[in-house]
Amino acid sequence: MLSRMDVVLPNEGNEKLNYNTGVLLYGYMMEQVGEYAQELHEQGIKPYSQYLFFDKAQNSYVWRINTMTESAYERLLLPLKDALKKDIFIKNKEMNIAYEKMVDYKQISNDELLKKYYLSDTTAKYITLKFVTPCSFHSFGEHVFVPDIRLIMKSFMSKADAFTEVSFQDEETLQSLVQNIRLSEYSIKSTVYYLSRVKIKSFVGTVTFVVNGPDMLKRLAGMLFGYGEYSGVGVKSTQGMGGIQIL
Amino acid sequence: MLSRMDVVLPNEGNEKLNYNTGVLLYGYMMEQVGEYAQELHEQGIKPYSQYLFFDKAQNSYVWRINTMTESAYERLLLPLKDALKKDIFIKNKEMNIAYEKMVDYKQISNDELLKKYYLSDTTAKYITLKFVTPCSFHSFGEHVFVPDIRLIMKSFMSKADAFTEVSFQDEETLQSLVQNIRLSEYSIKSTVYYLSRVKIKSFVGTVTFVVNGPDMLKRLAGMLFGYGEYSGVGVKSTQGMGGIQIL
Repeated sequence: MLSRMDVVLPNEGNEKLNYNTGVLLYGYMMEQVGEYAQELHEQGIKPYSQYLFFDKAQNSYVWRINTMTESAYERLLLPLKDALKKDIFIKNKEMNIAYEKMVDYKQISNDELLKKYYLSDTTAKYITLKFVTPCSFHSFGEHVFVPDIRLIMKSFMSKADAFTEVSFQDEETLQSLVQNIRLSEYSIKSTVYYLSRVKIKSFVGTVTFVVNGPDMLKRLAGMLFGYGEYSGVGVKSTQGMGGIQIL
Repeated sequence: MLSRMDVVLPNEGNEKLNYNTGVLLYGYMMEQVGEYAQELHEQGIKPYSQYLFFDKAQNSYVWRINTMTESAYERLLLPLKDALKKDIFIKNKEMNIAYEKMVDYKQISNDELLKKYYLSDTTAKYITLKFVTPCSFHSFGEHVFVPDIRLIMKSFMSKADAFTEVSFQDEETLQSLVQNIRLSEYSIKSTVYYLSRVKIKSFVGTVTFVVNGPDMLKRLAGMLFGYGEYSGVGVKSTQGMGGIQIL
């Protein structure tokens, strides 16, 4: 089950926020969830993602939290909702983050997501992704900080695989996706994301992909991109990195 | 022998210029060089490059022409100098390009370029390239429009190889370069370059590379990047694409 909550933080009083504040919000979040934090810590792929971005339309920062399982919803999103009735205080930085409101999204079951893409009459040939917060991939011991199609699809597949009943993660499917998806347009730049004492080379920006091949492949690609809006993409999507939005 | 001439075109009266005007300037240039145009046409790698860019410092457009051989200097750059004492008229577009002045650069022999990099005490670890005009590579029948390190170095090597006595173009050297050069920072976006009826997917922007490995490799990389400022990089560097500057 896919759930989402936006926490709207007004521009005023929050001058010091930027996407890297996602790390601090991660810390705050873990404080609210009690012993579940330890359980999450032991898990490989985590059932949630979160990131902070500035939303021009609202002239506000938005802290977006997505959960991918029923239990993450209950044990992470619900406690967070309870806590979030006042400003957010980041203890170790003595930093106060002004709070305005909370926006709840309709929950989507994994089945509904599958149906949305697989049973749709229309398939999208072009998909534009906005990498809202810094994105990076881990590959052969290095950080790769370009929108490499193989690494993007691989990340989507393993994240979707962890929490859906259908398994996507086979080499052959990945191959067909990689062979049929091309860069169409982009505007990107490198950046760094600060995680305690580590700087992670990463990138932000907008990328349009063109998906060729049979409709079935387009549907699968669409589904994976759609799932990626919840799971995030690449490394550290629980700590504020790899937040994406389909434009 | 490496030669360069900048043709300064004032901002005023040239409102319609943009980097794609490089194609028109190519046509104009070919008209000035007589039968040499036919000879050039039959050559694989051409001994010159040219592109148009806007130079903020001068508040003017600059048409930069580089030649890589003595004969290209004599048969292309010199006739062009003679022609360029008045505005540039592009016949088939009935377009007048206002002309201001010409800036000549000191010629550099290939030996001097080699010495500059190979006998220098200091080697640069970081090299920042500005892709001033749209850059694209041709690889396995496709246009690749990202700053792929292998394709960049390969292009430098084959261009340098064509007009220097030393041969750079062996697979092993290319391998070591590719293994030791990494992206460090970048800010790039895709674009298209219009060549008669063809649109070429390409990119512009700034890329910083970090060069690791032995000093000898850094020197070679430096030399190739340095040569690239004259030869251009990637496809259609005679028609206004692939102009680069080391920052």
